[in-house]
Amino acid sequence: MKPNPHATTDPYMQLLGLETRLVTPGRAIVAARVGPQHTNIHGACHGGFLYSLADAAFALASNAHGVVAVALSTQMQYFKAVQVGEELEAHASEENLGRRTATYRIEVKSGSRTVALFIGTVFRMQES
Amino acid sequence: MKPNPHATTDPYMQLLGLETRLVTPGRAIVAARVGPQHTNIHGACHGGFLYSLADAAFALASNAHGVVAVALSTQMQYFKAVQVGEELEAHASEENLGRRTATYRIEVKSGSRTVALFIGTVFRMQES
Amino acid sequence: MKPNPHATTDPYMQLLGLETRLVTPGRAIVAARVGPQHTNIHGACHGGFLYSLADAAFALASNAHGVVAVALSTQMQYFKAVQVGEELEAHASEENLGRRTATYRIEVKSGSRTVALFIGTVFRMQES
Amino acid sequence: MKPNPHATTDPYMQLLGLETRLVTPGRAIVAARVGPQHTNIHGACHGGFLYSLADAAFALASNAHGVVAVALSTQMQYFKAVQVGEELEAHASEENLGRRTATYRIEVKSGSRTVALFIGTVFRMQES
Repeated sequence: MKPNPHATTDPYMQLLGLETRLVTPGRAIVAARVGPQHTNIHGACHGGFLYSLADAAFALASNAHGVVAVALSTQMQYFKAVQVGEELEAHASEENLGRRTATYRIEVKSGSRTVALFIGTVFRMQES
Repeated sequence: MKPNPHATTDPYMQLLGLETRLVTPGRAIVAARVGPQHTNIHGACHGGFLYSLADAAFALASNAHGVVAVALSTQMQYFKAVQVGEELEAHASEENLGRRTATYRIEVKSGSRTVALFIGTVFRMQES
Repeated sequence: MKPNPHATTDPYMQLLGLETRLVTPGRAIVAARVGPQHTNIHGACHGGFLYSLADAAFALASNAHGVVAVALSTQMQYFKAVQVGEELEAHASEENLGRRTATYRIEVKSGSRTVALFIGTVFRMQES
Repeated sequence: MKPNPHATTDPYMQLLGLETRLVTPGRAIVAARVGPQHTNIHGACHGGFLYSLADAAFALASNAHGVVAVALSTQMQYFKAVQVGEELEAHASEENLGRRTATYRIEVKSGSRTVALFIGTVFRMQES
């Protein structure tokens, strides 16, 4: 597995309609517009879609150092329901960068409102 | 919002190719086959897809009591990388059922291996 | 159970030697000096002690609105080992304040280093 | 730091009055009786105490393989309030054992009721 610090998208992001707006080491912004294909049994945006948006930003931010980073543990807090037509942005920033692990915070925003908060920790793989 | 305890799929599950195999109050099984459209920048199954599979089982299990249940807080542990072609099942069971909140455990399995573990808590909405 | 928004300590905080430095609605700072009684089998500060320090700040900040708040779900990330003699501060701030739930972020700091990060969600009890 | 797979207590456990009932590789049981010194501002058992009980079982179970294991990420779900006088047991079992990380589940029980659920992941340190 070769790290690609310049990757800005992947097949899963394309399936979901996620658009990368920024990737730098430790930071990323990914955006999406919620469509009818992203809804749950209640007709609102699916929690798995909100998570996937945050997770995409997490993956880009954590791999942009040029070391392969794989997710170990993540956590998601849902604050507000999101409806079809809302424009979302996930903003990833680095909480901690260690040698073998690193932790990121991702805020999912709809305009100025934070609708969900994601915290994730990666394992950083090393050549040996 | 009317609870539909008989729902077994939704538009987001269809977008991802998730298939429901069981829904009873507090339990659900959702399955998927990992395809090339589900992969990340490393060519493996995307963490957001594994989460969405678990989250779909969580939503079906928690809403099957006939009370609208919305996700408050979730957590995901990733144990093993998953590759294209693997057949996955997410098994949801109830850890705790309170009046206003409930907690579920979802194991994501590839054959007999557990590849990820999800714990999620819902808020149970009530008529007033 | 009557809310006491003016509480600044409790018996468990006294057992552990935790000192409150600030409590305002949604915010709190709690401090401690790590002693030999707070150590684990490796001789370092016990993870349960770091959590308890963060949790004390979480409880004070979330109850300071004058509504009884009880913990539902919490998460702790450990960044750096802490040794006997270090002076710690836990800083709690409010990530989201809803009608029935609220979420807090608590940073545990040793000087200017963040040694651990805690995220917690409460249920806010209401008269009925 | 030398692993001690035979450790069954530490100074922090003694401060809190925690008693070890079982330690085997990947498993542990730790018990406590809730006293007035373990209470919070509402007069109930402090969430930090319940966590510390679970965390003690987590540390003993994860270190019993003879490899130093340090906590990376943990999560706690609180199901029911606990009162002074209750006898608690924390039961730790292994969810996943990898080469560099491992995940444990700890149930905190009061009699037959599960009052809290803890999930924790360790980093396993290796000689180099």
